[in-house]
Amino acid sequence: MDNVVIRAARKEDCPRILELIKELALYEKAPDEVTVTLEEMEACGFGEKPVWGSLVAEVNGEILGIALYYDRYSTWKGRRLYLEDLIVTESARGLGLGKKLLDELIVYAKENKYHGMVWQVLDWNEPAINFYKKYNAEFDGEWVNVSLNF
Amino acid sequence: MDNVVIRAARKEDCPRILELIKELALYEKAPDEVTVTLEEMEACGFGEKPVWGSLVAEVNGEILGIALYYDRYSTWKGRRLYLEDLIVTESARGLGLGKKLLDELIVYAKENKYHGMVWQVLDWNEPAINFYKKYNAEFDGEWVNVSLNF
Repeated sequence: MDNVVIRAARKEDCPRILELIKELALYEKAPDEVTVTLEEMEACGFGEKPVWGSLVAEVNGEILGIALYYDRYSTWKGRRLYLEDLIVTESARGLGLGKKLLDELIVYAKENKYHGMVWQVLDWNEPAINFYKKYNAEFDGEWVNVSLNF
Repeated sequence: MDNVVIRAARKEDCPRILELIKELALYEKAPDEVTVTLEEMEACGFGEKPVWGSLVAEVNGEILGIALYYDRYSTWKGRRLYLEDLIVTESARGLGLGKKLLDELIVYAKENKYHGMVWQVLDWNEPAINFYKKYNAEFDGEWVNVSLNF
């Protein structure tokens, strides 16, 4: 696979990023759960006070994967980088793009003095769990996510 | 309990906020896990680009509880408010301060157009789970927290 570029996302990448997010939601059988709009996404990522950022994996000019992140604040550890979504489009899986994205995000987090990185994985997603084990990541399944929608 | 004020935290509250964070860590038998410094905390909460904010519950001029929060970005829902810590000092539990803090934070999140609120609860913490059930919160225990420390 030649010509793989891992780079920071630009505003004009948002439509493709949203496509990949929707592809994942479809895979998780929850396509209707994606209610965010392209306009909101652009405003939150590239407005005055950016809330999120993303790396993209571009292969021959086409974005085939993303690692979307934002700041979190641990009251025990301080600033940590949160990996919200690591997505590689289905047809490009197994080619190492996920690893390239995650490796690059770790470099970014270290360079920017984050006290570590955090994310979540579905407890039945064995391939992903095994992938993360290679990074000597710590796993903690003692927590339940709680949400209030309004 | 008279003279309860719920208000936004100020920079000079940080020493007391950190005390409450350490009290909770001790209660969770992990006092050494708190490695964040007061200086980092102040810089992250009250610097040029604030990463976190907090409500405090003040009773007769003393801070007895906090609700510490920050922005998260859901790629499905958009901007959501994340409740990192809801702490009430042990001697003041059962007096309704936690409810006052959470109620006020919900008002804040709605006023500021967040698409909902999210947080985590330990799966064995029944009193907390029952408390959150009264808010008709949704619970999802299918996820495992993953972290890389550096």
